[in-house]
Order: sequence, then structure tokens, then C-alpha cells
Amino acid sequence: MTTPGTYTQRGVFVCFEGGEGSGKSTQSRLLRTWLEEQGYRVVLTFEPGDTPVGQELRRIVLSPETGALADRTEALLYAADKAEHVETLVLPALERGEVVITDRYVDSTLAYQGAGRSLPVAEVEQVARWATGDLRPHLTVVLDLEPAAGLGRFEGRDRIEGESLEFHRRVREAFVAMAAADPAHYLVLDARASVDEIATAVQRRLEPLLAGATRAGAEAR
Amino acid sequence: MTTPGTYTQRGVFVCFEGGEGSGKSTQSRLLRTWLEEQGYRVVLTFEPGDTPVGQELRRIVLSPETGALADRTEALLYAADKAEHVETLVLPALERGEVVITDRYVDSTLAYQGAGRSLPVAEVEQVARWATGDLRPHLTVVLDLEPAAGLGRFEGRDRIEGESLEFHRRVREAFVAMAAADPAHYLVLDARASVDEIATAVQRRLEPLLAGATRAGAEAR
Repeated sequence: MTTPGTYTQRGVFVCFEGGEGSGKSTQSRLLRTWLEEQGYRVVLTFEPGDTPVGQELRRIVLSPETGALADRTEALLYAADKAEHVETLVLPALERGEVVITDRYVDSTLAYQGAGRSLPVAEVEQVARWATGDLRPHLTVVLDLEPAAGLGRFEGRDRIEGESLEFHRRVREAFVAMAAADPAHYLVLDARASVDEIATAVQRRLEPLLAGATRAGAEAR
Repeated sequence: MTTPGTYTQRGVFVCFEGGEGSGKSTQSRLLRTWLEEQGYRVVLTFEPGDTPVGQELRRIVLSPETGALADRTEALLYAADKAEHVETLVLPALERGEVVITDRYVDSTLAYQGAGRSLPVAEVEQVARWATGDLRPHLTVVLDLEPAAGLGRFEGRDRIEGESLEFHRRVREAFVAMAAADPAHYLVLDARASVDEIATAVQRRLEPLLAGATRAGAEAR
């Protein structure tokens, strides 16, 4: 079912991963601004929920009102969100030569539904890879943070944030382990560093990958 | 990902399949009545949508307002419905020794999303088998009908019923082919026969399988 990872030849695909409160949204926006200032066309997106059907699925998986879901149900709902996200939003932008920055992607599914729940992670990965046509980011930035620090930033908590500290520690370990297994496509940064330090480190690492992206004014094809 | 089919040792699992208007609901209810008259405990259920989250997924996949969905999204939403259905409703009833009758199951996914859409049916099957833990019905009854006859019974049509006659013909062929490949677990009946004739044929075929089911008054374990 799983083919070797696919790295699109057009555009540049960047992913931010990490626990709750690690600064992914802030860094995603800073990276978009930096890229746009250089003339790159950028799509900033997120999982789950950045398509019309994805919004409904996000509500189902995150709302405390949903109550218990079977582990496979939850994994399949996240996979459905990914399938729609990749086919209708991510791939079209990459094919136009744009830079796609996503706040969470397959690694979050593996960390939360695989390491966090009781399902075999290899099975969850097969489903998520099938959903996404095994499209992989050129670079995944992991913003690494001790869960107690990140969760403290929140007042209201959704179904996932409300899990135990032990759950969130397993999630953190999963992110770091995935990065360690494929250092060519990962950058792990200490989320306690300053916002500027992190932004600069991401830019330095991404710079050599930008040859695949189209700048505004240049022909997309 | 796919293990050999699993046939539960407790309870009896019966499935009705067929195109729109083939009489599945009528025959499901008649079979329930016949079984209950003999003292069997029966759960009558259906896919998609017979769980709380399944109701929401059924609305998403069937409502014309949803518009286009990526093929993989649709297959994964059906799979999520199945995962919840099997884990929270079908398996618990079978483990209590009851007879579970379902109106549609995995074969519908294979026929509609596999043969009907453009996805490789083997991939759709892997996802659906994973969703259901590869639980198979002891008996699947296919109510076979030329689509033009069945669709004529409907006034309002949902997203699936509104597909072309050619789509529904491919669906019909898929059901018949699945039955032909595994005759030990299938019964194909001409849906144009009388309601009583069909009900009697289902009862005759099911009778020898009922040894695995618990009758009311008997100990469930």
C-alpha cells in the first residue's frame, strides 16, 4: 500500500510539527511573510480542517461533544481530512510552483493517533500515506517543547489537548524519533528559543530548497 | 494490511447488499421478524450512518450540498463510518451471541467507491478491511436488480442515486462478481421475485448457520 515517499518536483512543501503551544502558527506566519517579501507565492494552510469538508471533520474530532470515538474511526477521519487537503489544496498549489506551508501533516497523525493511542503505528501510517498519495514535505520543522510548558499556554482545551501529560510526552517523543530517522528532511528546534532565533534558523535551512519554487512575475510553467 | 477474513465465533452476522430499490430494507425487516419469532436476539442495522458520528458522516457523503469530494476522501469517510459501526455496534452484539443484520457493508464500499469511482479497488478494499478489522459476514444476500428498475422507485435522489445508469450498472456487476468469487458466503437472489419468495429463500439458506446464535432465555455465555 505504501510506496516510497513522493517529493513533488514543482513547488516547495514545508511542514511545521510539534506539540500544543510550541509556536507553529507564529512561525508559519513569519515564514510566509519572509517568503512573500522575496517574491515567492505562498499558501499557508493547516490540518485538520482547511477545506470545507475538513472543517466539519475537525469539529467532529476536536469537539468534546463528540465523546468517545473508536481509535480507527478517529484515524480514518484525520485521513479523510488529509485526502481532501492534499488533493484540493496542497497539490494544486505545488503544481503552480508555489511554496506550501502546512501547520501539521502526516507526522501529527502518526504521533497523536499512533504513539498516543493504542493502534499499531505502522497501520495508521499506511492509511495516512494512502490518503495523501504518500506526498512528503521537502522540509518538516519540529518545534520541540516539554508538554507541560506548551499546555500551560492554554485555558480552554479541546478533546486532544485535554489528554494526559503522559500522552503528550509520548507525542513529543514520536516527533523527535521521526526527525532522527530522516535528518535530511527534518529540522528540530528548541521551541524555548526566541521567536526571531527560530525564524532565522528555519529560513537558513529552507533557503537552498527554494530553487524549486516560482517567484511572482516569473512564469509558473 | 489485510489479514485473511475473520468470521466471528459468536453470534451470526448477515448482510444484505444490492442496488437502490432492490428491497434490502424490506427483506432485512422480514428476516428480523422471522428470527425474533424463533427467539433469537437480533440487531438490525445499516451503513452508512447507524452511529452518532456515522449520522454526521452519512449526511456529508450523501448530501448534494457537499458537492465534489476527492475520491479518497469519500472512501475514507465511508471507512470511518464502518470502523465506528463495527466497534461500537456490530462486534458487541455478536459477542453477546446475537444475530446482526446489516443493510449494506464492505461490499457496498467496494462496489460504489471501487468499481463506481476511479480508485483501484484493491486499495479501497485494504482501507475498508482495516476499518472493520476484516470482520466478514457469515452470509451476504445480494438482491440483484437491473438498475433502471430500482432507480425508478425513487423520486428524490441523493448524491449517489443521482449518478448515471452506467455507474449503477458497474455497481451491479461488482456485487455479482464478489458473490461468484465466494459462493460459500453469498446468496444471490433475483430482486424481481415476490417479497415472500425472497424471504423464504433467505430463511432456508440462513437456517443451518443459526447454531452460533443465542436464543432468548438461553444463557448468553
